Amino acid sequence: MAERRLKHWGWGYEDQQPSHDEVVAAAEGIRAHLGFGAGEVERPVALDDVQLPAPRLEAPAALSAICSSTPYERCSHALGKAYRDIVRGFRGEFPSPPDVVAKPRDERDVEAVLEWCTQVDAAAIPFGGGTSVVGGVEASTVDGPVVTIDLRALDRVLEVDATSRAARIQGGATGPVLEEQLKEHGLTLRHYPQSFEYSTLGGWIATRAGGHFATLWTHIDDLVESVRAITPAGVWESRRLPGSGAGPSPDRMLIGSEGILGVITEAWVRVQERPEFRASAGVEFETFEAGAAAARALAQSGLHPSNCRLLDEGEAALTGASSSGRAVLVLGFESADHPLDAWMARALELCADHGGEASDPGEKRGDAEGSWRDAFLQAPYLRDTMVAAGVLAETFETSITWDRFGDFVGSVREAAQGALGEGRVTCRLTHLYPDGAAPYFTVLAPARRGSELEQWQEVKDAAGEAIVAAGGSITHHHAVGRDHRPWYDRQRPEPFAAALRAAKRELDPGGLLNPGVLIDP
Amino acid sequence: MAERRLKHWGWGYEDQQPSHDEVVAAAEGIRAHLGFGAGEVERPVALDDVQLPAPRLEAPAALSAICSSTPYERCSHALGKAYRDIVRGFRGEFPSPPDVVAKPRDERDVEAVLEWCTQVDAAAIPFGGGTSVVGGVEASTVDGPVVTIDLRALDRVLEVDATSRAARIQGGATGPVLEEQLKEHGLTLRHYPQSFEYSTLGGWIATRAGGHFATLWTHIDDLVESVRAITPAGVWESRRLPGSGAGPSPDRMLIGSEGILGVITEAWVRVQERPEFRASAGVEFETFEAGAAAARALAQSGLHPSNCRLLDEGEAALTGASSSGRAVLVLGFESADHPLDAWMARALELCADHGGEASDPGEKRGDAEGSWRDAFLQAPYLRDTMVAAGVLAETFETSITWDRFGDFVGSVREAAQGALGEGRVTCRLTHLYPDGAAPYFTVLAPARRGSELEQWQEVKDAAGEAIVAAGGSITHHHAVGRDHRPWYDRQRPEPFAAALRAAKRELDPGGLLNPGVLIDP
Repeated sequence: MAERRLKHWGWGYEDQQPSHDEVVAAAEGIRAHLGFGAGEVERPVALDDVQLPAPRLEAPAALSAICSSTPYERCSHALGKAYRDIVRGFRGEFPSPPDVVAKPRDERDVEAVLEWCTQVDAAAIPFGGGTSVVGGVEASTVDGPVVTIDLRALDRVLEVDATSRAARIQGGATGPVLEEQLKEHGLTLRHYPQSFEYSTLGGWIATRAGGHFATLWTHIDDLVESVRAITPAGVWESRRLPGSGAGPSPDRMLIGSEGILGVITEAWVRVQERPEFRASAGVEFETFEAGAAAARALAQSGLHPSNCRLLDEGEAALTGASSSGRAVLVLGFESADHPLDAWMARALELCADHGGEASDPGEKRGDAEGSWRDAFLQAPYLRDTMVAAGVLAETFETSITWDRFGDFVGSVREAAQGALGEGRVTCRLTHLYPDGAAPYFTVLAPARRGSELEQWQEVKDAAGEAIVAAGGSITHHHAVGRDHRPWYDRQRPEPFAAALRAAKRELDPGGLLNPGVLIDP
Repeated sequence: MAERRLKHWGWGYEDQQPSHDEVVAAAEGIRAHLGFGAGEVERPVALDDVQLPAPRLEAPAALSAICSSTPYERCSHALGKAYRDIVRGFRGEFPSPPDVVAKPRDERDVEAVLEWCTQVDAAAIPFGGGTSVVGGVEASTVDGPVVTIDLRALDRVLEVDATSRAARIQGGATGPVLEEQLKEHGLTLRHYPQSFEYSTLGGWIATRAGGHFATLWTHIDDLVESVRAITPAGVWESRRLPGSGAGPSPDRMLIGSEGILGVITEAWVRVQERPEFRASAGVEFETFEAGAAAARALAQSGLHPSNCRLLDEGEAALTGASSSGRAVLVLGFESADHPLDAWMARALELCADHGGEASDPGEKRGDAEGSWRDAFLQAPYLRDTMVAAGVLAETFETSITWDRFGDFVGSVREAAQGALGEGRVTCRLTHLYPDGAAPYFTVLAPARRGSELEQWQEVKDAAGEAIVAAGGSITHHHAVGRDHRPWYDRQRPEPFAAALRAAKRELDPGGLLNPGVLIDP
């Protein structure tokens, strides 16, 4: 019996890939909706037709049970899931596949794999869902052999502390797998990055993934109580110390470390009871700027909405959130403890102060947020079809203080549009802070068939330059990986880079862990 | 004209020190209130009678304008403000005074002082308000000459961004000095550690000080947007990036670094409009345990009270918060945006679920929180008189997950009481998290005259052992310093210690910055 397998080149499972006729039909719909995209609807290169270099390594006998070098394993662990990754996978281009994919069953296996990598001087790339959109799991910067460590067998909720609302969960658990186990206890983590279905807790922690909550607990950082990781220098395990003020936080050094310091195997995370009370509304604004002013008021109000996503005019139209040509704020509150009428009432007052009109004020719309999330989680599937249809589809995100916000969004949009020529750049705000916001840009354009990667790079370069020049973060929650290095290197303080480099050297003297990500030796 | 000077041995200004007759009268009142403390009411050793070793260093001509080695400067920078520091200062014991006290006027001066320290191989101890209660500014672990760098001349609010609700403030600004400048803009930081009057923003950041808010923004960490520090390897300045997810946070490495990585000269912090709406209540519970159950419900409710301090029976009685012999929860909400009736109503329901009786439910008590804060800020002044009266007065604090909370408080209390013999150990909860609480213990006991330091050490050892053995943090917001090292070294992950050590070596190869704090070379 063939096991259900993930596609080796795109989003989701092999059995979710539509037939070519279905792709053609969908492609026509997409092209009609967008008003561009033309030419043949292409087919992905079959795995059998992919040419791979021979593996440079063979696992020792002791590890052979958990190691594989089949074309499927090598291809499906070779790339992340950015547009450029999908394009390359679709065309059968896997320029730097791992030589061996290891699938540890427990921490002992992780240690054994790291020891072997040290012995044979192989790079070790920790791999969760492989959904990186920043080249985080791609060995393109590595000279020499590569072992990718796929952690998805470590997928158990090991312990639940219902009193403290915390759970100890293995790093390889994907969103649905951990939520299913937490559900048995009536609890939930409620961390929903777009990659939720496939990405893992360890991956979220390693990359500071952004989740469900638009305010307060915007990143997985805010849900982490303690972390356990295997480093070449031994086990790094912090204690469960809520609010510890003892020295720089050990957790905060591992969170965002993108696999360069160790392999995250477990974490205690803050969970909660399932929300019983919800209030949600769609609020329309004449302009994105007016909506942003309302979003700022909400972010500074102390009301802490769980959802507060502002779609610009183009994005509202494109996603069907509004047909009025106006910007839309998707606003939501949730609680396991109390009704939210007072919260929503004041939030709508603040929106009205800035010209916002609630589409159905006062009334609870329990499904608005749910449909938004469903559509959000479907987007990456659609992208696979866009690639076939000749549509470039990419996103990039950042964060910026409110004082610079107005000029900032305009200049980034303009830079991306300039690099793109034809096509659309839309923007939404995904997360809000009292001192700033996280704008998230979506780019859709006719692909330059055959030179999609160059086209992608031009847009990426223009956006990265515009973001960093205008004072934004090169990433709010997509991580640094390899793709964001040119800008990350400029935005981080130099003495911090020196300190991080020294810390890595100390823990990983052989430099085997995910070389090329975040920092060079 | 003599400038107003801080006492060289105790809390506050010289002109705030009561006369000996006033001290005697106050001491009698304290003794009567506590039921212990006896013998002569002692007088502090006058500065002229203090014996100091000759300075081992003399500032070079270029720095002479900002350097001093007078007995006053050396004594008033020799110790922190723990009970043992007050006792030593009171008795004229300054065993390891700095040789030179430097008072830089700007960052150039800071750099020049660090360069000089490097040249002459002197230790450099950054000094804000000198209010450390963990040996953070004391050169007891230093061999060789010592320069203390007093940063209080860097006390300006340099920039205010009212749109983002943020301000750029120099590291040497004390609480009142920065609040006064922010007030001109209608803004406030609202960070009130007990040391508020004297401690500085840079000191708060270096030690992860705990502040005003009982939930959400419990530490200065949560109010920091970016940090600027002078390190021997250059200027470390992070960008203002709200919610940046790019790599491990540079700020989080400096926050809590206790002067071992650099001298914090500036930070952008999140400020807010002054609260216009307040709701507060005192809620009485039959037992501390019942109050703690209510506190947990509040912490997990998503209501986010700004004040939520639970005093046990002894502490409620001692501070006059209640005369009923019951535990008291001081509960408060504040907002610049909206009335808080719905918030308080639900909070009081949760309290009632656990048997809590609001002393005046429903009614706004605008001054309850204010009086609590005033009394809180007065406590260190009173302690100076307790030392004269022969009363040992010390506090220690920790944090712990809720699942261990019940046993934990009991075992720490018992350990401290056991070491103390006679006297009282009381407890309050100062800060709350969904997954745990921060218990704060106050110890009051008859001092063993002449051997107060040994007595203090016995209590400190017993409490530290009990805390770490039972799974608590050795500190929630008092920092590690030199005094907490034995327990901090046990609680931190070993690979993290190695990484931190390597980071320090990289930035401060001479090991001149605050040696003995946090980590050894």
